[in-house]
Amino acid sequence: MTPATQMPDTLTTDGADARSGVLQQALAAIAERGYWSRYPESPSPRVYGETAATEGKAAFEAYLGQRFPLEQPGTDGWVSTERNPYGFPLEIAYPHSDVDTLLAAAQAALPQWRQAGPHTRVDVCQRILDRLHEHVFELAYAVQFTTGQAFVMAFQAGGPHALDRGLEAVAYAYREMTRQAERVVWRKPAGRGTTVAVEKRYHIVPRGVALVIGCNTFPTWNAYPGLFASLATGNPVVIKPHPRAVLPLAITVRYARQVLTEAGFDPNLVTLAAQGPDEALASMLATRPEIRIIDYTGSTAYGQWLESHARQARVYTEKAGVNFVVIDSTDDVDGMFRNLAFSLTLYSGQMCTTPQNILIPRDGITTPNGRLSFAEVTDGIVAAVTALTREPARAVELTGAIVNEGVLERLERAATVGEVLLASRSVKHPQFTDATVRTPLIVRLDVADRDIYTAEWFGPISFMVSTDSTEQSLAVMCDTVREHGALTASVYATDPAVLEAAEQVAIDSGVHLSCNLTGGVFVNQSAAFSDFHATGANPAANATLVDAAFVADRFRVVQSRYPVAS
Amino acid sequence: MTPATQMPDTLTTDGADARSGVLQQALAAIAERGYWSRYPESPSPRVYGETAATEGKAAFEAYLGQRFPLEQPGTDGWVSTERNPYGFPLEIAYPHSDVDTLLAAAQAALPQWRQAGPHTRVDVCQRILDRLHEHVFELAYAVQFTTGQAFVMAFQAGGPHALDRGLEAVAYAYREMTRQAERVVWRKPAGRGTTVAVEKRYHIVPRGVALVIGCNTFPTWNAYPGLFASLATGNPVVIKPHPRAVLPLAITVRYARQVLTEAGFDPNLVTLAAQGPDEALASMLATRPEIRIIDYTGSTAYGQWLESHARQARVYTEKAGVNFVVIDSTDDVDGMFRNLAFSLTLYSGQMCTTPQNILIPRDGITTPNGRLSFAEVTDGIVAAVTALTREPARAVELTGAIVNEGVLERLERAATVGEVLLASRSVKHPQFTDATVRTPLIVRLDVADRDIYTAEWFGPISFMVSTDSTEQSLAVMCDTVREHGALTASVYATDPAVLEAAEQVAIDSGVHLSCNLTGGVFVNQSAAFSDFHATGANPAANATLVDAAFVADRFRVVQSRYPVAS
Repeated sequence: MTPATQMPDTLTTDGADARSGVLQQALAAIAERGYWSRYPESPSPRVYGETAATEGKAAFEAYLGQRFPLEQPGTDGWVSTERNPYGFPLEIAYPHSDVDTLLAAAQAALPQWRQAGPHTRVDVCQRILDRLHEHVFELAYAVQFTTGQAFVMAFQAGGPHALDRGLEAVAYAYREMTRQAERVVWRKPAGRGTTVAVEKRYHIVPRGVALVIGCNTFPTWNAYPGLFASLATGNPVVIKPHPRAVLPLAITVRYARQVLTEAGFDPNLVTLAAQGPDEALASMLATRPEIRIIDYTGSTAYGQWLESHARQARVYTEKAGVNFVVIDSTDDVDGMFRNLAFSLTLYSGQMCTTPQNILIPRDGITTPNGRLSFAEVTDGIVAAVTALTREPARAVELTGAIVNEGVLERLERAATVGEVLLASRSVKHPQFTDATVRTPLIVRLDVADRDIYTAEWFGPISFMVSTDSTEQSLAVMCDTVREHGALTASVYATDPAVLEAAEQVAIDSGVHLSCNLTGGVFVNQSAAFSDFHATGANPAANATLVDAAFVADRFRVVQSRYPVAS
Repeated sequence: MTPATQMPDTLTTDGADARSGVLQQALAAIAERGYWSRYPESPSPRVYGETAATEGKAAFEAYLGQRFPLEQPGTDGWVSTERNPYGFPLEIAYPHSDVDTLLAAAQAALPQWRQAGPHTRVDVCQRILDRLHEHVFELAYAVQFTTGQAFVMAFQAGGPHALDRGLEAVAYAYREMTRQAERVVWRKPAGRGTTVAVEKRYHIVPRGVALVIGCNTFPTWNAYPGLFASLATGNPVVIKPHPRAVLPLAITVRYARQVLTEAGFDPNLVTLAAQGPDEALASMLATRPEIRIIDYTGSTAYGQWLESHARQARVYTEKAGVNFVVIDSTDDVDGMFRNLAFSLTLYSGQMCTTPQNILIPRDGITTPNGRLSFAEVTDGIVAAVTALTREPARAVELTGAIVNEGVLERLERAATVGEVLLASRSVKHPQFTDATVRTPLIVRLDVADRDIYTAEWFGPISFMVSTDSTEQSLAVMCDTVREHGALTASVYATDPAVLEAAEQVAIDSGVHLSCNLTGGVFVNQSAAFSDFHATGANPAANATLVDAAFVADRFRVVQSRYPVAS
């Protein structure tokens, strides 16, 4: 019913040719960085068929109140930890595993998977991605009702965009694993016309069992790159989901195991490690000697803990940062207001890429119609956010719901740290009456309020910060990003010299920069195969999604050599 | 001094096209892994000209008893710490630097070097390599008289092979830095025939100042990969040589700074940090916040200290391991004896790749002439080593001199741990009467003496270990390599099943394997562009020389994007 089954028959041997063609396109895309996507992002029935959404919803609903259908080794109980931001109860129970048994099973699965080699592994990973895509609506509902995202976002970010990021990781893994010959006869001239000849073989050897620690807000999007990078390079993967967002990754594990089994591999190459209510499972797993790779998305404090304590593993972290917008001037005032308002409102600012600090000179900015004062700029942003969130039915499709209590607490606290320019309002969700929905809070600060705006305020919270000048704005951004990290930075300027200075600051502080976004491209969005997510060059992350460094150290090359007749 | 205007001239008048051709060959070589070398390894006058050796020797001798000609910022004194294993005094004084000044100078050099971009940086690195090659005899003598290597080895390993490894790192750096487009216009279909277009730029951004911590035995060979990988990717490099082997790296720094200056760059991109007698300079530098990359070769204990404490840096370590030979059977008994004897004798076993433990079934091995008993095998190896080292003049060209007191102490201790099959002898060096020369010690152990042979005994010390069977030999090797690490492993077997089992053990324990070496290829040697040195898959090293993972994380990509008319 979904295009994955309507497209090539991906699970038969002829499907392999089609997948190989897709891989070649993906390989071209990661080099050229132009637009390319494997999985259609529109949930429209014109793309996915008339019944796909209904079937996906039914599949999602079939999980509710049940034990999740997952047979894994060492199941010693069932745990249920999720709370749906939209209110209605999920009450899904997940198998809880004895860690010794689970890790032993993962280790036991490794040799056959290693032996299969890069080409087969990459093909099987593509089959898993295609299988997940067949269940993309099921995934989308699971993401929506664990993260609080609105449906379209849950579909796009949780489905096609996550799958594209996974495929991107697979493509990088393929490229790195095949970067040298598998074997060669090395012939060295040895004088007087003689030659020494040695046959050499190069084996791709995985590091060992990999751990993916999922996050609450983007359970699939943030997990798939690490999952598929590790799996494609030969490492069994244990997925430890956030206790509030288990279902999307449980579904992922379910279908991954299905494909692995169909392909003749041990399903324990991908397992779920669901956490009990009073269990520090991530820390326990992360420091086990069997775990050789860790991918983590979440708080800075815990990311730093992992980097310090999981010394036996290669640790890839995406932590938190403080994202900046620097406004100097614009030739499209309304476009800028609309664009920023959308970025602040989308998923209630609960994205690691949402701008937090909007820096504006206290004497205002230059526009085609003359200068706008600081107050006129902040009024414009406030009006644009208000317009976007006025109608509840429209508002909730942008804001989604609040993912957890922590965000609400921060919202209250943030309203006390400065002059409130726009208060956060509760919105009654027309469909889910128990959903917790809030509109963005906008607070005015001054550049002197450094202690406030250099901390991360995750949620629908942003600060309009008055500065002495754009030069000061850029300097503050540079220093703060270097010290506290950032996932995104954005600048509005008409003067090429200012844009150049901003670009220099972005390079110096190691943050991706978006310039003069006034239309349908938003600073908080990044496109697989073209945009890198995070840089690894500032404290917000030690890696990027996805580049060669993200995959190149997940395996090693072990060489054997044999003299042969020359 | 604005390189942007000077550089094109310099490059076009200075063989840039030829270097570009060399780079293309190097890029092909690292992919194909066949034999390729840029710098001729024979010191013969037919290759290097009649006067090269004499001139190089004169250049070396001109350094003796002098202040080394290096003008660096922050010089606050002069230090002299070397002791020549060949006896005659060097008494060269090196500038000692104030660390704050030195690091500030390195940081100040970064922006211009970053701005120059990958192509120019790679070209300048190639020029440095070529310049060092012009002084290869000077380097060779410096290596010989700080490490104790015999001349030919000092020339080859210290000169052409080190330069080849440096070029290999440059080629990998080039490939990784140019793996994606520098800019693209991303055009995404936006429905109804419209397109969203965004121009994207991808900037290669270095991590920051890099530190190379040199070793005593292979000061250039082990330093050049890290030096050139960091430099090519845009990072200024501070070189902290081993206090006993400063000269080879001081010469390296001297000529690197010369080329950088000629090319219009800040010479402080490469600096020497010479250590005073009572100074923990490596630890002090390694934990400075400015240091973002560290390359280290040396002891396991200190490598682990670095990995644990230099948390602000990406740390690449080559530590120590316990190398194995497993003998099961051979169809060339004498070839095996000769080959092993050479490997044990070469540079008095002072290579991280020298075999230490030779595992032989206690009931002997299979040969074309029937079985050889355990004693016949060890006798054969002993006889071959004795033959190689009988004539002092010939012996010293293989053994070189003992690098430091630690080796002598271990030699004495090792003679007490088991039955001595071959005692180590002092040899009078015909040319350098004060040189400390020792022949190899061979000690018999049993597989039960685990505590002895699982430790590293660096120097001309090897153990002939009796085992129950080849199966047990392989199991002992597997367990020991996993726990203690290894740089090399070697097997002699005629049965394909045994070779296959050995290869499986090598893969399982993550160590490079050489099979049935009986001719002119030795287990302790690895060839740039074809052999990987270390795997990063066992405790002996966390990286390999050289692969993509060794360079890919030394820089990051920072992206900027601008909407453009579609």
